[in-house]
Amino acid sequence: MAKDMTLLWGSGSPPCWRVMIALEEKGLQGYNHKLLSFEKGEHKSQEVLDMNPRGQLPSFKHGSFVLNESYGACMYLESQFKSQGNELIPRCAAEQAMMYQRMFEGLTLTQKMGTWPKAEVFSRCFAPQGVTCSSCIAYLFRFGLNEERYPKLTEYYNLLKDRPSIKTSWPPTWLDDPQAKDLLKDI
Amino acid sequence: MAKDMTLLWGSGSPPCWRVMIALEEKGLQGYNHKLLSFEKGEHKSQEVLDMNPRGQLPSFKHGSFVLNESYGACMYLESQFKSQGNELIPRCAAEQAMMYQRMFEGLTLTQKMGTWPKAEVFSRCFAPQGVTCSSCIAYLFRFGLNEERYPKLTEYYNLLKDRPSIKTSWPPTWLDDPQAKDLLKDI
Repeated sequence: MAKDMTLLWGSGSPPCWRVMIALEEKGLQGYNHKLLSFEKGEHKSQEVLDMNPRGQLPSFKHGSFVLNESYGACMYLESQFKSQGNELIPRCAAEQAMMYQRMFEGLTLTQKMGTWPKAEVFSRCFAPQGVTCSSCIAYLFRFGLNEERYPKLTEYYNLLKDRPSIKTSWPPTWLDDPQAKDLLKDI
Repeated sequence: MAKDMTLLWGSGSPPCWRVMIALEEKGLQGYNHKLLSFEKGEHKSQEVLDMNPRGQLPSFKHGSFVLNESYGACMYLESQFKSQGNELIPRCAAEQAMMYQRMFEGLTLTQKMGTWPKAEVFSRCFAPQGVTCSSCIAYLFRFGLNEERYPKLTEYYNLLKDRPSIKTSWPPTWLDDPQAKDLLKDI
């Protein structure tokens, strides 16, 4: 089934990584993918523009269906492959309510980057907001977020980073260059 | 079942209206609701802060579960009441892919307000992005969006505005004051 799927992605992009984590969680290994370079402007190449007129990554295709919104792609994968791999939507109404609240809160928060969802809330219902937010959280620590200042988020990050789906899809450019920048150290 | 639900809302707020439309679509009439005034700062009242520490509307509660993110509340209602009222998530994979793409695109677009999704795409798969975006679209026309400049959006708006769920939940303050402002006429 994964053979019908193509992902155009950029290394270290939280939205791209989000979709890759969802694909791993749903057991969809073996999908076609192509790593493109933001630095070389390959996200504006014709190949991307043909799938995503905005020239943004990720660009995900399943058969003839294109999903360029990473959250949309994650939700689509969960709907289409509900019974495959890990269930990303909890069945319990309480956890489902919290999941939807946190998922969309996470979406707002990544724009506002003001406050942080509590780790224990996240860890109570890992997915899909774990799937959707973990790449952003890893990105923050990559850029030097102060672990002491955000103990709950650090706790959650440590809980996530060894998860197979996340380890497997870890951005290759981050492996080449493990030295994190410290842009966020004073936040 | 709707008796377990409480919605604190403000008139004319697209996020509040979005949840009200979803409640109507799911046949959940009879839920408890309280109209609060933004003008009087009632969205910062203790009653709201107890449900939503950010002091924002909508604030929606189902039993003991609080959902303050309007998109999250809509998705939760669809998950919990799948077989009740109108199905808000199409079963067909193609429509589902398009729905998730448009839904999250809509979310981005309401922040960017730059380009517009095509009416025929929306109308091919009304819900839930119809549910989630229609209040924003009505809001734009309310504030004088130029119909000639956005024919596709106008076509979609005309398609939506007579839908029972939308008519029933039409913002009361808009009825009192049908005269639209023209803030957006030059956009």
